[in-house]
Amino acid sequence: MKPYVLGIDIGGTNTVFGIVDARGNVIASNSIKTVKHAKFEDYLDELYTEASRLIEMNDATDKVQGIGIGAPNANYYTGCIDDAVNLPWPSLPLAKMVSEKFGIPVAVTNDANAAALGEMTYGAARGLKDFIMITLGTGVGSGIVINGQVVYGHDGLAGELGHMCVKRHTGRQCNCGRHGCLETYCSATGVARTAREFLEIRTEPSSLRNLDPDSITSKDVYDAAIQGDALAKEIFDYTGTILGEAMSDMATFSSPEAFILFGGLAKSGDLLMRPLKEALDRNILSMYKGKAKVLLSELKEADAAVLGASALGWEAK
Amino acid sequence: MKPYVLGIDIGGTNTVFGIVDARGNVIASNSIKTVKHAKFEDYLDELYTEASRLIEMNDATDKVQGIGIGAPNANYYTGCIDDAVNLPWPSLPLAKMVSEKFGIPVAVTNDANAAALGEMTYGAARGLKDFIMITLGTGVGSGIVINGQVVYGHDGLAGELGHMCVKRHTGRQCNCGRHGCLETYCSATGVARTAREFLEIRTEPSSLRNLDPDSITSKDVYDAAIQGDALAKEIFDYTGTILGEAMSDMATFSSPEAFILFGGLAKSGDLLMRPLKEALDRNILSMYKGKAKVLLSELKEADAAVLGASALGWEAK
Repeated sequence: MKPYVLGIDIGGTNTVFGIVDARGNVIASNSIKTVKHAKFEDYLDELYTEASRLIEMNDATDKVQGIGIGAPNANYYTGCIDDAVNLPWPSLPLAKMVSEKFGIPVAVTNDANAAALGEMTYGAARGLKDFIMITLGTGVGSGIVINGQVVYGHDGLAGELGHMCVKRHTGRQCNCGRHGCLETYCSATGVARTAREFLEIRTEPSSLRNLDPDSITSKDVYDAAIQGDALAKEIFDYTGTILGEAMSDMATFSSPEAFILFGGLAKSGDLLMRPLKEALDRNILSMYKGKAKVLLSELKEADAAVLGASALGWEAK
Repeated sequence: MKPYVLGIDIGGTNTVFGIVDARGNVIASNSIKTVKHAKFEDYLDELYTEASRLIEMNDATDKVQGIGIGAPNANYYTGCIDDAVNLPWPSLPLAKMVSEKFGIPVAVTNDANAAALGEMTYGAARGLKDFIMITLGTGVGSGIVINGQVVYGHDGLAGELGHMCVKRHTGRQCNCGRHGCLETYCSATGVARTAREFLEIRTEPSSLRNLDPDSITSKDVYDAAIQGDALAKEIFDYTGTILGEAMSDMATFSSPEAFILFGGLAKSGDLLMRPLKEALDRNILSMYKGKAKVLLSELKEADAAVLGASALGWEAK
């Protein structure tokens, strides 16, 4: 009997889950809305129903040996989510509750660490032992790999580079309660915030002015920039510059061989990459200059986190 | 025959070296001036002469099995110093040249990594597997330990947290050519710079005004603060606050169990520690709050780097 694991990626908006075999093939996957359920128990009911349906449909009953979960602020050591500001239920014993519901062993880590594991096993980080994965989604996450091992820190919660302070005293309010965090600028929501700010304080024409400012998304800004809108391009310049500057500071910590970018925003091409690479090169300490590659994830966006989470599933006991 | 190693700490001002036994006792130590020799060959001649004298005097001839060196920007993998802006000879094959001169195997790492090794083996970090050593000297150095291992990065040059940018666009010029580096504020020379700046832009009386501004040292500022000088105290508030803010960012990377401070400035007591701890607590991400201890080195200042460097000496081949 061919063994499977279930990989689950819990994001601020969607939860994606998939059945994965020992060779890293995603046999089947599906998703539910994370935001739909204010109560975790209701969310877990729907997740269980949908995952069970997927397992049955793919003739995988009794073959799933472990569940790996990537979720914001999920602690590898304790199995808990702690203070996850982007989830409806910020703190709970995730591994225990999911394990009891499914009757299958569960291991958890934060979503960005899971993505880093996936990238190291199947993607752009194959063969790399020192790299930093940066996920540009609703927030900014990070998974740091040093000497081939994910950095969990003494408490299982290391690698929150989205909450590095990039503007100390004048920065934007973050969901975490602090100000100036990287993710208030360089996430999808950060790009939308920049758009609203620029539209308010600037006077030049822009196709973005045709949109309701409160509902502008990073996709809207991307579409406008691709059409040649100068203000939209400048929003990407601003975003990429801040991210490149922050990456130059990250390099002083672990001197990585590569940064690997993942998430919708990472697919913005040169709109983001040109200012990012320029800022990185301009700000990085000379001893590191020209060394750290900036790579894009080589995994399909939906699969990457599921694959990474599934890798943990094999370890679950 | 009892084996020894020679530990050498090359600082921007002084070079300290000592004979160390397998149990970590410093049998004897001495120092020479690093800055005296513009040519490395002349420096190496004096180091060899003085170290040989020390070895002879302590009946250690033929007992020294390896040499470990801690030096700014020294690369554990290549054995070279690269772009060490605080040394008279910024780039050279250090391990090779010292090894050829002494006829003994040599291993090198940067001075802060060596201090972290010393602290982990003999000092405040005994039993800790995740900590960040911060050395407050002429510059600011750092040695990062994750899972019980020093972080060298893909190129051997990781852990330069003194060059994290703490004031992005308006920061002080650093010796490294960039602006706003942590060490331009929180090193001994940084404190002296702050004193000069404060004396120029502020009008209140201070005993520091009796000194020649160009030759003020951090020790002068410390002495004045201890005597109750308000401006001198404020200089320490400013320094400690910036360091605490920077440490809150470091925590997002590796979530250390402790920060260990080392160097002359670290001995300033509450003058530095109170504002530092307040800023750390105020700025750290809530999931890390109250976790990371701030400790002082438990090794004598002269011995710490020699002991750390000597630990590398046992590995030298």
